[in-house]
Amino acid sequence: MAYFDAASSAPLHSVARQALLASLDEGWADPARLYREGRRARLLLDAAREAAAEAVGCRADELTFTSSGTRAVHSGIAGALAGRRRVGRHLIVSAVEHSSVLHSSETHEADGGTVTQVPVDRGGAVAAASYGAALREDTALACLQSANHEVGTEQPVAEVAEVCRAAGVPLLVDAAQSLGWGPVEGDWSLLTASAHKWGGPSGVGLLVVRKGVRFAPQGPADERESGRAAGFQNIPAIVAAAASLRAVRAEAAAEAVRLRELTERIRARVPRLVPDVEVVGDPVRRLPGLVTFSCLYVDGETLLHELDREGFSVSSGSSCTSSTLTPSHVLRAMGVLSEGNVRVSLPPGTPEEDVERFLAVLPDVVAGVREKLGAPAGEQPAAVREDALVVDALGKRCPIPVIELAKVFGDVPVGSAVRVLADDEAARLDIPAWCEMRGQEYVGEEPADEGSAYVVRRVS
Amino acid sequence: MAYFDAASSAPLHSVARQALLASLDEGWADPARLYREGRRARLLLDAAREAAAEAVGCRADELTFTSSGTRAVHSGIAGALAGRRRVGRHLIVSAVEHSSVLHSSETHEADGGTVTQVPVDRGGAVAAASYGAALREDTALACLQSANHEVGTEQPVAEVAEVCRAAGVPLLVDAAQSLGWGPVEGDWSLLTASAHKWGGPSGVGLLVVRKGVRFAPQGPADERESGRAAGFQNIPAIVAAAASLRAVRAEAAAEAVRLRELTERIRARVPRLVPDVEVVGDPVRRLPGLVTFSCLYVDGETLLHELDREGFSVSSGSSCTSSTLTPSHVLRAMGVLSEGNVRVSLPPGTPEEDVERFLAVLPDVVAGVREKLGAPAGEQPAAVREDALVVDALGKRCPIPVIELAKVFGDVPVGSAVRVLADDEAARLDIPAWCEMRGQEYVGEEPADEGSAYVVRRVS
Repeated sequence: MAYFDAASSAPLHSVARQALLASLDEGWADPARLYREGRRARLLLDAAREAAAEAVGCRADELTFTSSGTRAVHSGIAGALAGRRRVGRHLIVSAVEHSSVLHSSETHEADGGTVTQVPVDRGGAVAAASYGAALREDTALACLQSANHEVGTEQPVAEVAEVCRAAGVPLLVDAAQSLGWGPVEGDWSLLTASAHKWGGPSGVGLLVVRKGVRFAPQGPADERESGRAAGFQNIPAIVAAAASLRAVRAEAAAEAVRLRELTERIRARVPRLVPDVEVVGDPVRRLPGLVTFSCLYVDGETLLHELDREGFSVSSGSSCTSSTLTPSHVLRAMGVLSEGNVRVSLPPGTPEEDVERFLAVLPDVVAGVREKLGAPAGEQPAAVREDALVVDALGKRCPIPVIELAKVFGDVPVGSAVRVLADDEAARLDIPAWCEMRGQEYVGEEPADEGSAYVVRRVS
Repeated sequence: MAYFDAASSAPLHSVARQALLASLDEGWADPARLYREGRRARLLLDAAREAAAEAVGCRADELTFTSSGTRAVHSGIAGALAGRRRVGRHLIVSAVEHSSVLHSSETHEADGGTVTQVPVDRGGAVAAASYGAALREDTALACLQSANHEVGTEQPVAEVAEVCRAAGVPLLVDAAQSLGWGPVEGDWSLLTASAHKWGGPSGVGLLVVRKGVRFAPQGPADERESGRAAGFQNIPAIVAAAASLRAVRAEAAAEAVRLRELTERIRARVPRLVPDVEVVGDPVRRLPGLVTFSCLYVDGETLLHELDREGFSVSSGSSCTSSTLTPSHVLRAMGVLSEGNVRVSLPPGTPEEDVERFLAVLPDVVAGVREKLGAPAGEQPAAVREDALVVDALGKRCPIPVIELAKVFGDVPVGSAVRVLADDEAARLDIPAWCEMRGQEYVGEEPADEGSAYVVRRVS
């Protein structure tokens, strides 16, 4: 079995496990109490705060423990916006933030605030200049992830922080994906993270608010954690989180090199082993252990299921997975193919053999899924239909609309166009992406009686 | 060492520890994922939800896991108020609720809502009729604890639920102190609880919302836990919480009898062993393991410190403890003495010897504290002062104002009055309480140049 979904949650690090066990007997009492058990709990909590602050690169009194990374983001954004309410109610986020940031921004909009989403390039990165352009007189807060959770692209946090600092606007950095690898560079104002992403336990997030940043905690008052995280602290988990952060940091430099080489193999070899694949995300400025690619003519859910049968646990930003019917907002913002999307995120310690076995198994798995769906093999359309100029894929889910387009495309004279009728949201992303991969012209989208018509012209 | 503060946090139950360890290896993955590790995590989560729901007496889909009891209360009240916003914005709480409920009510008031606090009797209990009287056309929600956390008094939840149900108003029950002892009786609508109070791990609360109760989760959207508790679930802790709830329930009937007998000893013997003590809280309708008493002429913090030195960990609702300068809102609402307050809350399994040793040690400890403060011994004033008719205790902290009053009182002719000048908030509670204990007349409070003047007339 190979677990390749560390970006969702990493297996518990052995140091986290040991620290958790060791502190179960010492850390259950109320650290606000003055008796012996309370003092012991307080000592553990204080030591964990010092250790976590050192790893983040902040003062201990700037760091509070929350119950999750999501909660850190929700509280951090709400508190920073409220703290600068006099300045204004404008919030800047990138288009590829984690859902916890985007959901916070939706709540802010619903509450009468305004939000600017900064776009990303095809590699998934923002430009510092785009943040500069988004800044306004009434901007209360800007948010940017340190690295993207779906494609691994690292963001220019230090540059964006500089731009924001010059305008007097605090920058909140969601460091959930990167904090295990190293501190976040640059002059940021707030930072959030999540312990179970670096091999710590579930139930612990970090919220750092730099001294001098205006911050007004929202929700009912609570005296714990400087009033920034309500509820009784989970001290054994906090101790385990801090201890494992130090442990993964000690291994980070060497492990980053090793995992980067393994993901580089996947980046380089998947497009050679599997036809019609697009590897997405920045090839250089990226997280060490994360690589994402999309496979034309493949249904993401079926692909995940088949990989699971082969012993590989990966995730997907495709629209056709589990509960969601729309493609990942990250892939959409990047304008890349979403169908047959696979995210491989290797936990530290992943053996080379597991990656080699993945590369050995993948081509047949993808071919199998494509065969089931009746997809064209390689460049050659598999079937010919009479009504070549209109492809009716209404009511068909991703990746069928693209498969139907590919099936007829070989019969279209060069210079002629095909109209694909589709009502699946993913087609809007995947048909242009197919054109880009095939070097054909995507003419555009037109309204239709049902769904939309996507027009593609054959140019070669 | 004897830990007598289970009402703050109970030591981890052995079953919780075992369940936590057993699920660390299976419960770290994302339960929303479809691969093997995700499915295993989902199975653990589903089983824990079933077990917890059975113990509560609700459907599994009515129960969500939150990150703490405080968070369950905050989210439960906010969601229930928002769900019934069309009905109105009136909230009813008892005057002796946990701070998480009262802080939620303060937030609601600050946001333009209205709140009625239902008073309690001298035993700490509300009357169902008082809830009935508080209900209005625009009442959105009523809240009542199942039992009080400071004095152990059980509330008439079933009766209050009936009154609320008749008016079509949902009742939220904070069952933090009682859920380990048994399900909450009556036709309540929402229920909250906290695992570390019953011997489960920190980091797990329960929020139950009955089917049919209007509920609109507040804050940024999050798909986990039916949208009612944002953030990645802490599954090992959740499993441990559910397993330990079943375990403590299996032991509850026998252990309740045993602890009730032990606390009965304290209730009966402390007033005989220690002069000038008031045992507070309902003598019959009370939690099995909790007993609270207040000692005249004693500084709560010093008393806790001395008991800690003797190996007893207890807490206090006195004003003179740690961070707070006002007496417990519970003791204030009950109108009982707050100075020298001690809450003994026995964890299940407390050996009889520990309680006997506590009773053996307590008289000397209290006498020692009184001696240090120069308090009167027993009924006999220890010192006589010239200016008997005005006691200037300005700038003196609890319990000094009462001690100064007692010192001069023996020299006051029957029928005459003493004016105590004090600016400590606790005097407002403790001087009337002293009068009640001594059978003297509390005339009332008068404004003074500094602080207040509390007038006491000697009647015997």
